[in-house]
Amino acid sequence: MAKYLQLIDQIQQQIASEIWLPGEKLPSLREQVAQSGMSLMTVMHAYQVLESQGWIVSRPQSGYYVAPRAEFLSQPASHQKVQLTESVDINDFIFEVLQACRDPDIMPFGSAFPDPELFPQRQLMRSLSAVSHSLKPADALNNLPPGNEALRKTLSKRYALQGIQVSPEEIVITNGAMEALNLSLQAVTAPGDWVVVENPCFYGALQAIERLQLKAVAIASHPQHGIDLTELAATLAKLPVKACWMMSNQQNPLGCTLSREKKQALVALLEAHQVTLIEDDVYSELWFGSEKPLPAKAFEKQDSVLHCSSFSKNLVAGFRVGWVAAGRHAQRIQRLQLMSTISTSAPMQLALVDYLGSRSYDVHLRRLRQQLEQRKSLARQSLRRHLPASAKINDSQGGYFLWIELPEAVNTTELYYRALREKISIAPGKMFSTSEQYANYFRFNTAWEWNDSREAAVATLGRLIAEMLQGQRWP
Amino acid sequence: MAKYLQLIDQIQQQIASEIWLPGEKLPSLREQVAQSGMSLMTVMHAYQVLESQGWIVSRPQSGYYVAPRAEFLSQPASHQKVQLTESVDINDFIFEVLQACRDPDIMPFGSAFPDPELFPQRQLMRSLSAVSHSLKPADALNNLPPGNEALRKTLSKRYALQGIQVSPEEIVITNGAMEALNLSLQAVTAPGDWVVVENPCFYGALQAIERLQLKAVAIASHPQHGIDLTELAATLAKLPVKACWMMSNQQNPLGCTLSREKKQALVALLEAHQVTLIEDDVYSELWFGSEKPLPAKAFEKQDSVLHCSSFSKNLVAGFRVGWVAAGRHAQRIQRLQLMSTISTSAPMQLALVDYLGSRSYDVHLRRLRQQLEQRKSLARQSLRRHLPASAKINDSQGGYFLWIELPEAVNTTELYYRALREKISIAPGKMFSTSEQYANYFRFNTAWEWNDSREAAVATLGRLIAEMLQGQRWP
Repeated sequence: MAKYLQLIDQIQQQIASEIWLPGEKLPSLREQVAQSGMSLMTVMHAYQVLESQGWIVSRPQSGYYVAPRAEFLSQPASHQKVQLTESVDINDFIFEVLQACRDPDIMPFGSAFPDPELFPQRQLMRSLSAVSHSLKPADALNNLPPGNEALRKTLSKRYALQGIQVSPEEIVITNGAMEALNLSLQAVTAPGDWVVVENPCFYGALQAIERLQLKAVAIASHPQHGIDLTELAATLAKLPVKACWMMSNQQNPLGCTLSREKKQALVALLEAHQVTLIEDDVYSELWFGSEKPLPAKAFEKQDSVLHCSSFSKNLVAGFRVGWVAAGRHAQRIQRLQLMSTISTSAPMQLALVDYLGSRSYDVHLRRLRQQLEQRKSLARQSLRRHLPASAKINDSQGGYFLWIELPEAVNTTELYYRALREKISIAPGKMFSTSEQYANYFRFNTAWEWNDSREAAVATLGRLIAEMLQGQRWP
Repeated sequence: MAKYLQLIDQIQQQIASEIWLPGEKLPSLREQVAQSGMSLMTVMHAYQVLESQGWIVSRPQSGYYVAPRAEFLSQPASHQKVQLTESVDINDFIFEVLQACRDPDIMPFGSAFPDPELFPQRQLMRSLSAVSHSLKPADALNNLPPGNEALRKTLSKRYALQGIQVSPEEIVITNGAMEALNLSLQAVTAPGDWVVVENPCFYGALQAIERLQLKAVAIASHPQHGIDLTELAATLAKLPVKACWMMSNQQNPLGCTLSREKKQALVALLEAHQVTLIEDDVYSELWFGSEKPLPAKAFEKQDSVLHCSSFSKNLVAGFRVGWVAAGRHAQRIQRLQLMSTISTSAPMQLALVDYLGSRSYDVHLRRLRQQLEQRKSLARQSLRRHLPASAKINDSQGGYFLWIELPEAVNTTELYYRALREKISIAPGKMFSTSEQYANYFRFNTAWEWNDSREAAVATLGRLIAEMLQGQRWP
C-alpha cells in the first residue's frame, strides 16, 4: 500500500474510533512529518485526499481540523412505544417508494439496492453456466433446508476467518437475509412478546413485528454511536423483552457501526436479560478502512445471537440467497422455512458454491469497497455543493447510505413527492420510524457512478429543498 | 389415438363420472362390440388393459365389473374443530418424515415430491445456460414483485387456453406455491378469523393457519367425491368464515378431483357467504384421461378465488418458482412478499421464461402424465399383491398419491417407525389431520420407476402390516 494511503487509513481509523473528535485540530503537516517519518509531500497528499473525502477541513492560517459530522445531527428523542395503528399507511407508502425506485427513468437515490453494475456479472454468469451443465435431478432434494452443505461449509470458514466459531450445522440457507430475519424472529417469539428495535431502523423490522403480532419498543440510536445502552438497560429492566432486532454494522438508515466495546457490552446486557439478539448484518462486507468489523455475534457467550446476512448487497441481488447462523435455533428455523417457502432455489445455491470456490470473491469485495468509498465521497461532495448549508449529512465508515437532516421546516415526505415529479427518488425518514420524529430526514443511496445527470439531480434536490425552506407552496 | 386407447379413455371417464359405479357389471365384450362398432380384438385388448390397471375386474363365467375402489374406505366422521394444542408435536413429526425422505438410502414412498428423473433435465439445463449468457445487471430489479413480466404473460395465456380470464397484472410470482398459499392466506385474513380446510388435508394448510393465529374448521372430504358441501353450507351458516383453503384437483392426500358441477356449486356457496377461496392447485397438470380439469377459479363470479400453483410438481422442484392468480389481492400480496422474502430469484424466473418459450412444456407434460399413470398402476398392482386383503386403496384419476386405509388395529404412525427401520418411508395419516381420525391411513407416493427393490419394499411393508395385525409387539 502506498505510504499516503496508509496515513489516510490511519487517520480515518483514529477519527472513527474518536481519538480525534469532530472540530479538533489535527497535527500540523510539520508535526505529522516528524511523527510519521513520511515526507512532507506524502503527508500533504494524504491530508488533501482526506479533505476531498470530507474527513477533515482546512482553515486558512490555522491548519487541519476533523470535519464536523454527525455531531450536528439532532439527537433522537427518548424511546417511545411504536404506534402500530397507522402502520398500514406506512407500509403502503414504503411499497410506493420501493416501486418507484424500479423505474429506470427515476434517479434511484431512494433505493435500498447498490448499483448492480458493481457486481461481478461475468464471473457469476460463468458459475451459473457451470451449474447449468452439472445440475442433477437429485439436487432439488440435496438443497432443501438447512441448504447446500458446501455452501454452509464455506460460510462456516468465513466466520472462522474472523475468529467466530459457527459450525455448518448451525447455518440455514434462506431466500435472502429478509427470510432469515423473519424466520429468526418467528423462531424466538410468540405473539404478544416484546421486541426491541432501534429508532430509526430498517422498516422490514417493524413490518415483521407487526405481522407476527409482537409489540415493539424502539430505543434511540445515535447517528454515530448507535443504540443507547443506558436506555436499553432501563427498558430491559422494565419490560419482559424477548428479542432485539438490530444492526451493529453499517446500520440502515444511519450508516453507523458500533465500536467493538459497545458490541461486547450490548451482547452482555442482552444475555444478562436472556434476550435473543437477531443481528441484521447485510452490509457487513461493505466496511471501509483496514479491518472488517466483527459482528455482535462474535461476543456471544450463551448462543444468544442469530446472525443474518446475505450475498444480495455485496455480490448479487437477484439470486435471493442469504443465511442465518442460528445456533441451537437452526432446527426450528428449518421447520419454519419448510412451512413457508420450503427452500432456497437449488441452482442459485449451487452457482454460489461454484463462485465462492473460485476465490475471486475477496478480490471482488476489495474492489467493491474501494468503489463504494469513492462513490460515497463524490456523492457527499455533490450534496455539500447543492444542499443548503443548514442540511446536515451523517457520514460513516462503510456502506452506501448517507443519512441527512434538513431543517424542521422541510418535511421529507413532501420533498419525496416533489422530487418524484422531477424523476428523483429519495427515502424519507418516515419509512424508518413509526414516530414522526424523522419527518425532516432522508436516506440517500450513494452507490451510483457519479456523472452529470447525478450531479444535476442533486442540484434539483437542492433547489427543491431551498424552495420548501422559502415556504413555496406545492401546486 | 389407437381405437383401443379411445375405448379405455371412454370407460375410464365413465367410471370416473360414476356412470358405472364400483361393483356394477360392464357391458359384455359382445355388447361392447355391438355398441362401439369396434372389433372384438380391440374391445378385448381395452378390457385387458383396464383390468391390468385395476379399473375393472373379471369374474370367471360372469363378465367384467367395475373394480371396487374408494367406496370401501371408511367415511370420515363429521367435521370437528381442529385441536391446535398438540400441533407442535405434529409439526415435529412432519418435519421428521420429510427429512427422512431425503436420505437416498430410504425408499421414498412417504415423499411429497415426484421422481425428479421424470423432469426434462436437459432442456432445463439448456435454458439455465441460456440465461447464464444473457443475464443483465438490471435483472434483479426487473424481476422483483410482481415478478417477471414475460412469465406472467405466459401464465396468463395458459389460463386463457382453459377459458379463464386472468390478466398478467393479477399474477404474482412466488417462491413456489407454498409462498403463494401462505401470502394469500395472510392477505385475506386477520388473526382470530375462521378458515375452512378439508379433513384430511395438506399439512401445510394447518401449519399456516396456526402460524397466522387463525382458527381452523375442518370439513370432511370424501375419498372420491371430495368436500361435503352440505356440511360446508351448515358451517358457513354458523361461523363467520373468512377463507377456505382447499384443493379441487388431485387433492392431497386423497387424490380426488371434484366434478365440474361440484366446483361450480362450491364457488357459488363460498361467494354467497363472501368467503375467499384459496385454491391449492399444484397437481393441476397431473391429470389422467382426455381433458384437463378446470380449477374452481374458472367458476368465480366475484373475483373470489386466489389460484395458487407452481412448476415444482410437474417440471422442476428445485427452482422454487410458483405463482398466485390473485385478482384484486395481487397488490397486497406483492407487499407481503416484499416484507417476507423480497422476491423470487431472477435467474430462475428467466430460465422458466426461456423454457416455456421453447414450447416443449406441453410435450413434456403429456409424457409425464403417461408415465405417472403407468407408474401408479404398477404401484397399485404391487400393493394389491402384498398388502393384506383388508387394506383398502383409494385411487384417483391423476397425480401420484394413493390413499390407503388399513384395519383400525394398525396405527400407521407405528407402521411408519417400523418401516423406517427397514429403510422404507410412508406418510402416515396423522400428518394430514389434527384429529386422530386417520390413525390407520397412509399416503403412498407412486411416482417412482417400478423395479425389484420397490417391489421388495412393498412386500416388506405388507409383512410389517401383517405382523401388526397379528399383534406382534415392536421391540
